[in-house]
Amino acid sequence: MFITVEGVEGAGKSTLMNLLAREFERRGVPFVRTREPGGCGLGANLRPLLLDVSSSLDGRAELFLFLADRAQHVADTIRPALERGAWVLCDRYADSTVAYQGYGRGMDVEVLQSLNDYATGGLWPDRTLLLDLPVKTGLERALARNGREGLSKSEGRFEAEELAFHQRIRKGFLERAARWPERFRVLDALRSPEDLLADALKALGSLPD
Amino acid sequence: MFITVEGVEGAGKSTLMNLLAREFERRGVPFVRTREPGGCGLGANLRPLLLDVSSSLDGRAELFLFLADRAQHVADTIRPALERGAWVLCDRYADSTVAYQGYGRGMDVEVLQSLNDYATGGLWPDRTLLLDLPVKTGLERALARNGREGLSKSEGRFEAEELAFHQRIRKGFLERAARWPERFRVLDALRSPEDLLADALKALGSLPD
Repeated sequence: MFITVEGVEGAGKSTLMNLLAREFERRGVPFVRTREPGGCGLGANLRPLLLDVSSSLDGRAELFLFLADRAQHVADTIRPALERGAWVLCDRYADSTVAYQGYGRGMDVEVLQSLNDYATGGLWPDRTLLLDLPVKTGLERALARNGREGLSKSEGRFEAEELAFHQRIRKGFLERAARWPERFRVLDALRSPEDLLADALKALGSLPD
Repeated sequence: MFITVEGVEGAGKSTLMNLLAREFERRGVPFVRTREPGGCGLGANLRPLLLDVSSSLDGRAELFLFLADRAQHVADTIRPALERGAWVLCDRYADSTVAYQGYGRGMDVEVLQSLNDYATGGLWPDRTLLLDLPVKTGLERALARNGREGLSKSEGRFEAEELAFHQRIRKGFLERAARWPERFRVLDALRSPEDLLADALKALGSLPD
């Protein structure tokens, strides 16, 4: 089973990933925990380029770097894990590219969908957990986590953008969830971590006890 | 005027670029000399990844890295130069991607054409000088230049591939030249550097004396 966790900044993706990983371990589910960008050897080289807030990366160059990272990540990490029967738990994937570059930055959403199809060889998650919350709350959480200084550093590239940008991204995620209801589960990110974990486990179904 | 120099390994692109650059200087033509991959800040970071013979880069990841480099190169270097009226003299460009990844590695040529259109915002050269010669002669020249050791190092990624691969690439370049005869000029790369320079200048036309 290929599971992705998606959402705007400060939605609590890392916290949920940690709780899910602990739960998988406890239940003896073989799994690989990974993330984008940077989940493979190539991505580790690209991640600093992609998250550098001071760079003036061309929009299409940025897009192609994300796609390069994704293609390599699928080939090196995700497909091999799925083929040997492991679950894959991935922090961000193609939906983030469409939400950020498409809805956020105004690139053509259908072109992005096709490019992601091509980059992944048509591999989409079996289940996508979308952590949804008001954008302002998420940005305040992210600010509290990284501090104001953090916003001018590598992790802060997207967090430095304005509220409206993030609202378009949230809208994009929700539109995608509505378009693929079998794949997406929208979770209320304002709930406590324990409740959220319970929601996530319910959304995944069929886990061994 | 946007000029690219293309051809298989060992065709003599660098030598012709040097001679053309000297000629442009002599005639006072304002120009920018550049290359792909690696003609911009981003490309300088990507070039080692792309040319590393020891890496096991996924085919699509490699393609997207070339496209990222190209998009940034067009945005940062090529378009600004053309807009201020300078000539641009570029060692390899989109035709190389279609020839190598498409004809060479068997990726879909029309998909590659579209992806390059997208990456460049539709910017194709005004004139492409294709240095053509028998593949074996080219590889022997490249071997003599880099030495056998060079073939296992960064510059040798493509040179380590087999003859048939390079023959498909040559065929790809020639097919492209036949498809866009207004843009392409096929030059005989077996001629002496002086004769080749004369051929190239004639192919460019309209240069001030």
